[in-house]
Amino acid sequence: MAGGMKLHGSPISTATMRALAALYEKDFDFEFCLVDMKSGAHKSPAFLSLNPFGQVPALEDGDLKLFESRAITAHLAHAYADKGIQLILPGREMAILSVWLEVEAHQFDPVVSKLLWELVYKTMFGIPVDPAVVEENEAKLSKVLEVYEARLGQSKYLAGDCYTLADMHHLPGLSYLMGTQVKKMFDARPRVSAWAADILARPAWAKVVALKDPPPQ
Amino acid sequence: MAGGMKLHGSPISTATMRALAALYEKDFDFEFCLVDMKSGAHKSPAFLSLNPFGQVPALEDGDLKLFESRAITAHLAHAYADKGIQLILPGREMAILSVWLEVEAHQFDPVVSKLLWELVYKTMFGIPVDPAVVEENEAKLSKVLEVYEARLGQSKYLAGDCYTLADMHHLPGLSYLMGTQVKKMFDARPRVSAWAADILARPAWAKVVALKDPPPQ
Repeated sequence: MAGGMKLHGSPISTATMRALAALYEKDFDFEFCLVDMKSGAHKSPAFLSLNPFGQVPALEDGDLKLFESRAITAHLAHAYADKGIQLILPGREMAILSVWLEVEAHQFDPVVSKLLWELVYKTMFGIPVDPAVVEENEAKLSKVLEVYEARLGQSKYLAGDCYTLADMHHLPGLSYLMGTQVKKMFDARPRVSAWAADILARPAWAKVVALKDPPPQ
Repeated sequence: MAGGMKLHGSPISTATMRALAALYEKDFDFEFCLVDMKSGAHKSPAFLSLNPFGQVPALEDGDLKLFESRAITAHLAHAYADKGIQLILPGREMAILSVWLEVEAHQFDPVVSKLLWELVYKTMFGIPVDPAVVEENEAKLSKVLEVYEARLGQSKYLAGDCYTLADMHHLPGLSYLMGTQVKKMFDARPRVSAWAADILARPAWAKVVALKDPPPQ
């Protein structure tokens, strides 16, 4: 099974990084297939056969073909529950985990995606930043982080006392945000700040970062 | 368990309607607690203790408190798999179902939410429609529906040959869109159009609509 595991993506894409984090946490031996987005490879017929929306990443697990990063991580966590780190919880605790998965997807990610576009990708592409969009989304993120600060006073991680998919899904956004002015919003909140530092320090995440920014030879 | 089931929400909210659809499909005896959003009840301390983000719906299942509509439906489908209609699939098919759950959440819903704001809620509140936003999001929805048209040529429903959460999550958006100019985009695609008609005709959905638009006495 693991022998036939291939992830197609780009190491700078947040969605690809999310899927990579799960593959490394679950200790899979997998092949990483670079999709050269600059040349439009994600819109090629070969890639569209893996994901008809033409977005990275896509996973091949033997003859099972999956796309959407959060569906890929859910598959790896559930179908391979006995392999590597456990990223899910049993019984009723799974319901609480599901809540925080949805919070990441619907409260955190939409705001963070807009901030990353302004503060990371626009700079990368030489496009002027729109300060009004930054201000609006910093205000929205502030409200989200207030909820997280309270939540992390009740449990060490978002879904409970163990690291799960719900924390892991935040890593790509957190990792990029820490290189921007938004870092100060985390620094101002002790529990959120400690949580972010803790999950960013995971060995599996270091492997994702090393693929994006290879160490000098 | 079922005796202690309470859904807090507003019958015109798409997210509340999504949770209601699951409660009716699973044939739960539940109490519907109206959250009067006009008076700001969703920002009251009582409601914030159910959902710190102050958004409807929230579910109380005995002493388990959940929010985020898709986490509520997932809990009802998984924890009560033996009750009412099955809304999930076994084994590897669940991975495919997860893909289409994420497609609804990340490809369909963001575009449809913008269209509903322009074409339904702005009219309701007497705010002028922005034709450029409508045009941009109709173009995006067109690409999504093209993928659905192809997918529904491979299986009767999005995740396979059975109705699941992946179809059900579309119902609130579909239901509102069918009363707007966007209906023509469905009419132009035979498989998408048949799928939408099929799932909108489910008896459980009729109960959700009856709660929103009570029949005349």
